[in-house]
Amino acid sequence: MLKLYYAAHTCSLATHIVLEEVGADYSTVRIDFSRKQQQSADYLKVNPKGRVPALVTDRGILTETPAMLVYVAQSFPQADLALMGDPFAFAKVQAFNSYLCSHLHVAHAHRMRGHRWVDADDTQAIAAMQRKVPEGVGSAFEAIERDMLKGPWVMGQQYTICDAYLFTLAQWLEADGVDPQRIQRIVDHRHRMSERPTVKKAIAQELAP
Amino acid sequence: MLKLYYAAHTCSLATHIVLEEVGADYSTVRIDFSRKQQQSADYLKVNPKGRVPALVTDRGILTETPAMLVYVAQSFPQADLALMGDPFAFAKVQAFNSYLCSHLHVAHAHRMRGHRWVDADDTQAIAAMQRKVPEGVGSAFEAIERDMLKGPWVMGQQYTICDAYLFTLAQWLEADGVDPQRIQRIVDHRHRMSERPTVKKAIAQELAP
Repeated sequence: MLKLYYAAHTCSLATHIVLEEVGADYSTVRIDFSRKQQQSADYLKVNPKGRVPALVTDRGILTETPAMLVYVAQSFPQADLALMGDPFAFAKVQAFNSYLCSHLHVAHAHRMRGHRWVDADDTQAIAAMQRKVPEGVGSAFEAIERDMLKGPWVMGQQYTICDAYLFTLAQWLEADGVDPQRIQRIVDHRHRMSERPTVKKAIAQELAP
Repeated sequence: MLKLYYAAHTCSLATHIVLEEVGADYSTVRIDFSRKQQQSADYLKVNPKGRVPALVTDRGILTETPAMLVYVAQSFPQADLALMGDPFAFAKVQAFNSYLCSHLHVAHAHRMRGHRWVDADDTQAIAAMQRKVPEGVGSAFEAIERDMLKGPWVMGQQYTICDAYLFTLAQWLEADGVDPQRIQRIVDHRHRMSERPTVKKAIAQELAP
C-alpha cells in the first residue's frame, strides 16, 4: 500500500488529489511544519531533503512532485492521467509540471523561504525578495494563462495530473499578492477543481483536526 | 526531423548529449546570449519564455529540460535511457532530474540571474544572493553525492538521461565557488562523461566558431 507524507498548505496536495483520482489504496502521515517535523530525525530517514511530499511504495521511497505524479499515473494506467501513450502529449504534461516546479513554485518560495538563497539574518535581502514575489508569481501565472492552459483543463478536454498540480499552487496566489483579476481563467479552473469530490476529500483530510 | 535551439554553457547541453546518445537525426540552432537573442521577437515565437533549450518536433515545440530528455528517450526506446518500462525506476530518474532542475539549477541561477527574484537595480540584494551560491550549490551537490549518485552512473550500472543532465550542471561548479574536493564522486562522474564520444561531439559542436 502507498503511504503519503504530507503537510497542509504545501505542494503535497497535488499528489494527494491524484491518489484520490486514481482510486489508490493509500494511507497518509501528517508532517507538522509548525513543529518543524520535516527536520526531525525520524522524517529525515524518510526524506533526507527534509521536505514534503514523500511517497512510500513497496519498492522504496519517492520524492519530488513531478516524479510522484507520473508514478501514480503510470501505476494506474486506466485513468490515463499523464497521456503517457503519446510521447508528445506526455512531454507537454511534463513540461507544464516542470514549469510549475522550477519557475512558479520557486518564485512563490521567495516569500517564506528566502533563507535558502541568502543568509537567514540578512533581513534586507529577505525583504527585497518578498517585495518581488507578486511580480514573479504573477508573471508566471500570466504565462500559464496565456500560453499553457488550454481549457477547460490544462491539456484541453482531458483531465490530467497537471490540473491537480496547478490547482495546488493556485491556492497561494492571493497570499503571494497576485491580483486574481489578472488571471481569470486560472481562477475559473481553480473553482472547477474545487468542486470535484476527489479534491474536496483530499483537502478535508489534510485540514481535519 | 528534430531541431534543437541551444546556447553554449547552458543546460541545453543535456538534451544535445541525449540526442547524440540515441542517434537521432537532428539539427541545431545556436542562440547567442551575448546578443540577447533569447529575447528576440523571432525566438520568442519559438519559446515565449525566452529561454533555451527548445526542441522543434513535427508535432510542435517542446521546452523544459526534464520533459525534453524524457521525450527523446521515449522516442528512441531501444536505448532505454529513462527506464520507462519500470514505473519505480522511471520515477527515480524523474525525481533526480526534478531535483537538478528545481533545486540545483535554481541555486546556481542566483549567481547570474538574481534579477528574477529581486529588483534588478537592488545591487545589495543581488550581491547577497551571489554570496550564498557556493553554499546553496555546494549543499545540493553534496546531497547528490551522498544520497543519489549510485555509480558508476547516476542510476547505477545503466547509463540514463540523468547522467547527461548531471554532467551539464556539473560544468559550472567551480564558477559557482564549489570546492571540487567536497564532491569527488561527482567530479569522477564528470570525467567519465567527458570521455564519451557523444559528449565530445555535442560540446565540440556547441563551442565551434
